[in-house]
Amino acid sequence: MDIKHYMQQLGQQARSASRAMARADSATRNRALTLIADAIERDAAQLRAANQLDMDAAAANGLAPAMLDRLALSDKAIATMVEGLRQIVALPDPIGEISGLKFRPSGIQVGQMRVPLGVIGIIYESRPNVTVDAAGLCIKSGNATILRGGSEAIHCNRALARLVKEGLAGAGLPEDGVQVVDTTDRAAVGALITMPQYVDVIVPRGGKGLIARLMEEATVPMIKHLDGICHVYIDAKADLKKAVDIGFNAKCHRYGTCNTMETLLVARAIAPAVLPQLAKLYATKQVELRADPEALAILTAAGYPHLAAATEEDWSTEYLAAILAVKIVAGTDEAIEHINHYSSKHTESIITEDHTDAMRFLREVDSASVMINASTRFADGFEYGLGAEIGISNDKLHARGPVGLEGLTSLKYVVFGHGEVRQ
Amino acid sequence: MDIKHYMQQLGQQARSASRAMARADSATRNRALTLIADAIERDAAQLRAANQLDMDAAAANGLAPAMLDRLALSDKAIATMVEGLRQIVALPDPIGEISGLKFRPSGIQVGQMRVPLGVIGIIYESRPNVTVDAAGLCIKSGNATILRGGSEAIHCNRALARLVKEGLAGAGLPEDGVQVVDTTDRAAVGALITMPQYVDVIVPRGGKGLIARLMEEATVPMIKHLDGICHVYIDAKADLKKAVDIGFNAKCHRYGTCNTMETLLVARAIAPAVLPQLAKLYATKQVELRADPEALAILTAAGYPHLAAATEEDWSTEYLAAILAVKIVAGTDEAIEHINHYSSKHTESIITEDHTDAMRFLREVDSASVMINASTRFADGFEYGLGAEIGISNDKLHARGPVGLEGLTSLKYVVFGHGEVRQ
Repeated sequence: MDIKHYMQQLGQQARSASRAMARADSATRNRALTLIADAIERDAAQLRAANQLDMDAAAANGLAPAMLDRLALSDKAIATMVEGLRQIVALPDPIGEISGLKFRPSGIQVGQMRVPLGVIGIIYESRPNVTVDAAGLCIKSGNATILRGGSEAIHCNRALARLVKEGLAGAGLPEDGVQVVDTTDRAAVGALITMPQYVDVIVPRGGKGLIARLMEEATVPMIKHLDGICHVYIDAKADLKKAVDIGFNAKCHRYGTCNTMETLLVARAIAPAVLPQLAKLYATKQVELRADPEALAILTAAGYPHLAAATEEDWSTEYLAAILAVKIVAGTDEAIEHINHYSSKHTESIITEDHTDAMRFLREVDSASVMINASTRFADGFEYGLGAEIGISNDKLHARGPVGLEGLTSLKYVVFGHGEVRQ
Repeated sequence: MDIKHYMQQLGQQARSASRAMARADSATRNRALTLIADAIERDAAQLRAANQLDMDAAAANGLAPAMLDRLALSDKAIATMVEGLRQIVALPDPIGEISGLKFRPSGIQVGQMRVPLGVIGIIYESRPNVTVDAAGLCIKSGNATILRGGSEAIHCNRALARLVKEGLAGAGLPEDGVQVVDTTDRAAVGALITMPQYVDVIVPRGGKGLIARLMEEATVPMIKHLDGICHVYIDAKADLKKAVDIGFNAKCHRYGTCNTMETLLVARAIAPAVLPQLAKLYATKQVELRADPEALAILTAAGYPHLAAATEEDWSTEYLAAILAVKIVAGTDEAIEHINHYSSKHTESIITEDHTDAMRFLREVDSASVMINASTRFADGFEYGLGAEIGISNDKLHARGPVGLEGLTSLKYVVFGHGEVRQ
């Protein structure tokens, strides 16, 4: 099989199906989602059997236990997928809203209408639940989608694709509205990210390695984020309790997430007061602190057991582990400068009671999420109230930060006239 | 001089200046704009002299008269530039607005703040006024900018650059906030569009040839449009007077603009009534009509003098001239299908008194501007009330249709907390 030809065929079919997907009313799209949820519940046993084929093959291929864990589709995971679809049904329809309709001196009335983007390509790794989550969000937002999951999950993804198509057909929508790439050939990814005539945007959901690889080749725009080097800055005017609570939570709530703090900046004036208190909490989790000379002196004096001297590299490292870089700064200016230089522009937070400094930090820090007195761990589509999250964007164009259904839409201008011509 | 090295230096300087540009308050940015306007008024004679150098060189190089005309900087053109800057001063500041600030169940308050994109690259041809217009819009929106004008205008652009820098410095902003590429080497363009680390977006302002060339190579995102193959569809339920007025205006108001109609679609039922009336008006302008067989029969019977049979190619041609493709369709379905297939997704209009058909056209036509009973010529930033227009986008991501100051901005999430941590 010629992979490029096969992918172009999927692309053409998606483009063609995207018209019917965009035209469908809210009730039809919600009906499809409900039918898919029902079908998954009905066929849970078959899905588990398909997943078992994948698990057996993966185990035979010596896949690492952590990867096997991601690949597994438990009864609970199936119930969560079904529940996720029903939650998407309950979200407001993002499509068709007309906003800002205003009369102009010429007599025409101009506004903007929210419309689907068209065809979304989703590239992900081995978690089979992404197949259903992503299909659900694309159906809800009136888009056609091409899903390319990890090759380890191919049996399970095929089984899920059948149920998704059953649901689409049951609601009178084209089966090609959601297509799962049915080959494990890696060339399929290369083809998908280089056919802008058929695919409007790619959403990669996976690790840094996957995304770095895609960035080299993609000619289709992507909604992506590479890494999360997030900062908390404890200002001289910080409330000590807030500083300690947030400094601990932002690092230790979860280590492997992109909104976890990786570097802590502390104002010189408050460092002797706040660092020893924070160190007591970090010690309970054996967090390794990589400190600049000043912080090192304070932490050494406090008898902190897991200490190392920070190197230049530490300021731009995403540890995703119980490691934290710590640096003393003169004040807000130096903190902002450090962050705008080293941050991956994901999420940063200032802890302070000083209003002017807080507002300056909010304005001048050039990251997708900027916070005052809150843990960076809140940077998340659900915590922000988006209802769902298709991904996170570190880019500035189109969507920035957590991306919900709205990120899968576009605004077109609509003009209501009464026979007006241009003078 | 190593062009790549030179451009990277401009890029670094722009990135560094962009921080101060973004930080500057409204009054400072407006002060810079006013100082630039004053300096241009003061040095009008010197600007004309610099322009004369360009004109002489261009004439010696045998530049076509139409190009010489674009290059010329008359007193009137200078006054228009100055007036344009003063109008930009009067526009509301797009930067810093916080919207949608809402409390979440966790206690944090989440909203979005409008912020500059960072560094904008503008690539244009020989009109020197673009240098000032583009610089003005970028300063107003808090961005740094790198301007690359046509090599024919280099003397005038240098002179304008000096005045822009004088205005920036006078307001206490970095002179590198606006940089004019000071080389006529074409490699500068290649470098500018491939340094995403320094440039956040490219706005090409120029013909199809320029943009097609950029699209091949650019790795920096672009706000661009390639062509405008705009349609008017006269529905069976159209008001005859509106249909004739708009059908004439959309084609004949100006031929060379991207929002000019290039294909007229007419419902079969109304064609015998509307086409002969329209033909009378087109005849006054000697418009060549390239018609499908049915339209050809009606127009021949009406004795239209400038007729040709349309070929398949005509449906996807942007004439930018007194030529119009004409096709009879069964009704709204066929019109939408034709448009979504052949249009460049710029602007389309339906002429009808039927509400259901009008709203279906509005929703189902996948173009940047979709109109009911209005001339396609209204697709324009000023007509839409954007206050200014930096360009037009045919893309779906980020900005679509006419792009005003808002298109040079991005939204970041802001979180107001009170010590909240993630549970």
